[in-house]
Amino acid sequence: MAHTLSSTIYCSRVLIRSERGRQHRSNAAVRVNGAAHRTPLQVGSALETSINRSLPELSAPLLASPPLLTTDGHEGSRQNIPTEKQVEDPFRQAQIVEGGVRYQQTVVVRSYEVGPDKTATLETVLNLLQETALNHVWMSGLLGDGFGATHGMIKNNLIWVVSRMHVQVDHYPIWGEVLQIDTWVGSSGKNGMRRDWLISGRDSGNVFARATSTWVMMNKNTRRLSKMPEEVKAEISPWYIDRHAIQEEATEKIIKLDSNAKHVDSNLKTIPDQFLQHHQLNNIILEYRKECGISDVVQSICQPDEDMVSPGENFNMVRGPLLLPEIINGHHNLAGALQQWTTKYTHLLQLKAGDEYEEIVRGRTTWKKKL
Amino acid sequence: MAHTLSSTIYCSRVLIRSERGRQHRSNAAVRVNGAAHRTPLQVGSALETSINRSLPELSAPLLASPPLLTTDGHEGSRQNIPTEKQVEDPFRQAQIVEGGVRYQQTVVVRSYEVGPDKTATLETVLNLLQETALNHVWMSGLLGDGFGATHGMIKNNLIWVVSRMHVQVDHYPIWGEVLQIDTWVGSSGKNGMRRDWLISGRDSGNVFARATSTWVMMNKNTRRLSKMPEEVKAEISPWYIDRHAIQEEATEKIIKLDSNAKHVDSNLKTIPDQFLQHHQLNNIILEYRKECGISDVVQSICQPDEDMVSPGENFNMVRGPLLLPEIINGHHNLAGALQQWTTKYTHLLQLKAGDEYEEIVRGRTTWKKKL
Repeated sequence: MAHTLSSTIYCSRVLIRSERGRQHRSNAAVRVNGAAHRTPLQVGSALETSINRSLPELSAPLLASPPLLTTDGHEGSRQNIPTEKQVEDPFRQAQIVEGGVRYQQTVVVRSYEVGPDKTATLETVLNLLQETALNHVWMSGLLGDGFGATHGMIKNNLIWVVSRMHVQVDHYPIWGEVLQIDTWVGSSGKNGMRRDWLISGRDSGNVFARATSTWVMMNKNTRRLSKMPEEVKAEISPWYIDRHAIQEEATEKIIKLDSNAKHVDSNLKTIPDQFLQHHQLNNIILEYRKECGISDVVQSICQPDEDMVSPGENFNMVRGPLLLPEIINGHHNLAGALQQWTTKYTHLLQLKAGDEYEEIVRGRTTWKKKL
Repeated sequence: MAHTLSSTIYCSRVLIRSERGRQHRSNAAVRVNGAAHRTPLQVGSALETSINRSLPELSAPLLASPPLLTTDGHEGSRQNIPTEKQVEDPFRQAQIVEGGVRYQQTVVVRSYEVGPDKTATLETVLNLLQETALNHVWMSGLLGDGFGATHGMIKNNLIWVVSRMHVQVDHYPIWGEVLQIDTWVGSSGKNGMRRDWLISGRDSGNVFARATSTWVMMNKNTRRLSKMPEEVKAEISPWYIDRHAIQEEATEKIIKLDSNAKHVDSNLKTIPDQFLQHHQLNNIILEYRKECGISDVVQSICQPDEDMVSPGENFNMVRGPLLLPEIINGHHNLAGALQQWTTKYTHLLQLKAGDEYEEIVRGRTTWKKKL
């Protein structure tokens, strides 16, 4: 990777367009409040899932050196960032477990975090990943500023950027559901860090979602990737566990789409509404290539897999009079197959740079039919 | 009020346009995912502040009879709605205090709830009002469905609608700040209920925000206002306290704007970006007149008060070389006056009905200059 990595929630938000109709927000990312400055992503050691942040935040928590997040001064004391490792945070209902490395927090799904079907939106899931990751760093005593940078990173002018994110949602939790979110970090190559999450029912233990991500360091002034300084490695490596929330097979390479793709849209709306109404996102992988800012002009491209059957056709076929219950429920297990029936899309978000386009992020999503 | 009252967050969201750049979302409210059905507001006994809900929710939690929110069935048990009054909810860190009527919850401002300046957005404040109100009903054992309707209301086919909302934000809390939110209800005329809130620092006790609201009942099928049945009055009146979070003088009447107003916009963007960048909303009053749905075409109108000085002029004047510190800090107390210097707007959101417009909501906002 010779170029600068990036994230920007914006990009991914545009790419996936939540199945719950949040796509209209994406326009705002292009130009928020008329501000024309670039706002490159600054993320937490733990941090900023970058798939989700709501738009207004885009232009801000991403800025360097936020004045309110110093540990000295009035606001700093209000924020109360610990300077030493804590094992318990009663207000966040959090604790450090497993020999002091894994962070665990209890969270109740709130009334405003659910969508039309009264289940948590993807945005909520991603918000909670970000929140718990940042709280993990917060409790570790390593937090040097508001977005997960450690003291060593701040000294070296480094910020975290996400290079890859993979989220798998088996079930979306409902309003009022009490969740337990676990998160931990591990090494990723010489200069990277991985962070994994597991969201489960606090009582049932049932898994709702799993996620893994890869983070690298960027110099916040030059916007170039950086090696991880020994000083920083010494800070974070004691927290490493070698455990994977998602058992990924050999990482599937996401192909690069071009303008021959089925859906090309500079209004950033690529997955058809009709499809979104009847499907639920259950897997998303994002590979970040370049950063982009709020005033950049971007284009979203999306291509369904070729073997995809039209959802309408499929649905009618199953419900049609020709299929006897015996067939549906027989040993061919068509019903089961249909429940598992998924649709896959490949995505690309590109940045318009003169007459050319530069890749910002590639994506791959899997959708399940709502039955 | 001969006509149907309404709320819809949408309306108010459009009206005020958060100072943090969330205005772009408003378009989505007009048409979400191509759905063309009306989604009238259904709100909680406590409920739905209606100023804030994020867009996707608009098309949904507002629907009647949500299948996931029955108290029987699998999801119902996952949601765990109490059928009797509880005095403590450990997961929500909540308790019923003051002789069993006032609800009190501890909340930590999360990383994704803050804006560019690392302080909670207005949307966050409003989300928390909604959340605590619904949790209050939840803990009361009265909750019959997901949006605050009591058992008696469900039996009578009634839903809550907000007729007036007044929020006053003295200070916006910052990320990580530990808040205590208190909320309680009282009577409002023969057929209404008021709900008040107080948001303060958990340790400091400093008040961040206060709010009051008025709620009435609507038949969910006829969409007409209803008297409060004795059965419902009997359910909720034991919870009434006569206490006001905001000491309102004689309620100022909000004038009705017409198309001669300074800012008229069918793209729902009326307050200038330039203004929003330098000001913070500190008071908003909304009077709801009629409901509107997601496919309705609306128009937003806004008028600054006549005695308003241009913020730019004012700012330059103060910072200019001609003002000596003695003058600024002198007994005329110009600095203090400027800190208190506010700008007021009157708002109107109307619904296009044929060739005419019908009022949806009138609003009045007060903004403070960020210093």
